[in-house]
Amino acid sequence: MGRRTEVFKRAIGGEIVKVLLSHGGGGRETSELLNRLIFSRLPIDLKRTEGGIGIDRPDDGAALKMEEGYVIISIDSYTVKPLFFPGGDIGKLAACGSINDVLMMGGRPIGIVDAVVVEEGLDMSILEKVMSSFLKVVNDENVPLIGGDLKVMPKGDVDSIIVTTACLGITKTPIVDDGIKIGDKIIVSGTIGDHGATIMALQRGIDVKETGLKSDVKALTDLMEPLLKEYGKYIHAARDPTRGGIAMALNDWSKVSGSVIVIYEEKLPIREEVKAYSDMLGVDVLQLANEGLALLAVDSAVADDVVEFMHSLGYEKANVIGEVREGRLKGFVLLKTSIGGFRIVEAPIGSIVPRIC
Amino acid sequence: MGRRTEVFKRAIGGEIVKVLLSHGGGGRETSELLNRLIFSRLPIDLKRTEGGIGIDRPDDGAALKMEEGYVIISIDSYTVKPLFFPGGDIGKLAACGSINDVLMMGGRPIGIVDAVVVEEGLDMSILEKVMSSFLKVVNDENVPLIGGDLKVMPKGDVDSIIVTTACLGITKTPIVDDGIKIGDKIIVSGTIGDHGATIMALQRGIDVKETGLKSDVKALTDLMEPLLKEYGKYIHAARDPTRGGIAMALNDWSKVSGSVIVIYEEKLPIREEVKAYSDMLGVDVLQLANEGLALLAVDSAVADDVVEFMHSLGYEKANVIGEVREGRLKGFVLLKTSIGGFRIVEAPIGSIVPRIC
Repeated sequence: MGRRTEVFKRAIGGEIVKVLLSHGGGGRETSELLNRLIFSRLPIDLKRTEGGIGIDRPDDGAALKMEEGYVIISIDSYTVKPLFFPGGDIGKLAACGSINDVLMMGGRPIGIVDAVVVEEGLDMSILEKVMSSFLKVVNDENVPLIGGDLKVMPKGDVDSIIVTTACLGITKTPIVDDGIKIGDKIIVSGTIGDHGATIMALQRGIDVKETGLKSDVKALTDLMEPLLKEYGKYIHAARDPTRGGIAMALNDWSKVSGSVIVIYEEKLPIREEVKAYSDMLGVDVLQLANEGLALLAVDSAVADDVVEFMHSLGYEKANVIGEVREGRLKGFVLLKTSIGGFRIVEAPIGSIVPRIC
Repeated sequence: MGRRTEVFKRAIGGEIVKVLLSHGGGGRETSELLNRLIFSRLPIDLKRTEGGIGIDRPDDGAALKMEEGYVIISIDSYTVKPLFFPGGDIGKLAACGSINDVLMMGGRPIGIVDAVVVEEGLDMSILEKVMSSFLKVVNDENVPLIGGDLKVMPKGDVDSIIVTTACLGITKTPIVDDGIKIGDKIIVSGTIGDHGATIMALQRGIDVKETGLKSDVKALTDLMEPLLKEYGKYIHAARDPTRGGIAMALNDWSKVSGSVIVIYEEKLPIREEVKAYSDMLGVDVLQLANEGLALLAVDSAVADDVVEFMHSLGYEKANVIGEVREGRLKGFVLLKTSIGGFRIVEAPIGSIVPRIC
């Protein structure tokens, strides 16, 4: 009898239920747990500040209404394993992840804070490498590190390093995902699933160098700042599709807009190696985490211009992958396959892999 | 040969040095490590936003200069063990800790975000209790929870729960600790060392109920909001003296102001049980963590009025415990003992106890 079965049986018997890996997978179980423990237990006034955006509306971060414009804040704990992977490490990931969340809210990142928890006995050189990667992003993106915390836990109480970052940004007009409209085109800025496939392969002991897999982790400032300036008012929704992949983000969007989102298999930019690897393991690329990808819903009148502009910024794999439609299947996401059929794209259930980001 | 000796020898031999518990103790080793890994490696422009307060000035949090006033942000990871203790639990601690940091920067807390990392297999009832305590503070203090993250780590990768919180606040005039002046009086809002003594006793298996020890964890909104309103301009420095206790905070202050800070043993409000327990174990109460205590440097002209006002707000143990002086021992903190001598109060070295907050 597997552990999961056991837990399920105990739940039925009315005994104590345990926290499962899937509760942290970023999919349906996460939403349900957060709803039960937090969202359902707070009145609206304690879910957001007045005129702001909070946990009442699922998005990359929160926004506070100030006298002039908005302050954006995002927070995430990074627990990725292994700490170092092709394309980056936990330090780079933690800095880029929270910066990207602010960018996807339409904000200009202006400051970052970190809280690092380290295992006693960890090689100092590892901590140094991680912090160097973190500071490189701070430098490259010109986002000051304005505060932080460091804790050490006794050996055995935590595995290596956990980095939590919160990023602050400002904007006159936040991009809130419920701005999505029927007719909008869905755009991705690059290939999908790269980060998720890479970490999964590493965790399964596969020689990643052989496969050519590489995480896409990067800060999207060089994409989003010009894009917001040029086409800001046409971007109706923007998401940093990490855990749960674009499947999770698109399902959120179809629900919030009461629409059907249709995406086309043949339009999805997917690296050969990511496709091969996910086919082999039977995982859905749409559910794999991305760490340097923008997912946008854009006014159809400018969608092609936006893609062309993204190409000119060096995001040569950017593509329109689908659209937002009316239809009977409100709240669903459909994939039109290469052979012509439709399949429902589900929000992920269960944890595909722990410690993915 | 103890582990510490071994690590030291390896360091001398030029081999890899390990992260030690003391690096996370909040004392001198923490400062030195952060300086080496972070502070010394960033130019001033990447340590704070323009016109703001960042890691260039050690304080409870950071401040960003906005068009109108300042946005304050604080962040901390909470790793306390045990999760539940007389007076509170990790949920209450995480909410109060970051709120208090904002208050001590002179800010009005306006929103909080959390990032929770949970161990797979943890009893759901424990997570529920912790989140309930967290939400109770959100409710009681009327600080909306505007965003968050939840991760689950596989069994064995983390011990129970780590909660990271960042709190946002606003103020027209932040209280920055380098505002401290010669002649200022040092005030505490209540008894010292309660939290540290309680957690230490629990970790050493002592029956805390017998001792009467109890953590002081609480949000200081009911103290700081009226105090800032009434006496804001006379408060030259304010600190939430958690890890490292008031010894660490006062040492920071004496260094930043190039003054001598003298405190009087007989004026220190210390509970009998805290005194008895710390005498027994030979720990310095001044170095014990506090989680519901305000440490202030106040213009001497109003110091007695401030204390009286604090009494009227229910903080009946509030007291002037010392003062900021000129003198040859610049950068030092001195304790005038009950029998008349002076002893140097050092910033803590080594980790008194891990997972204290």
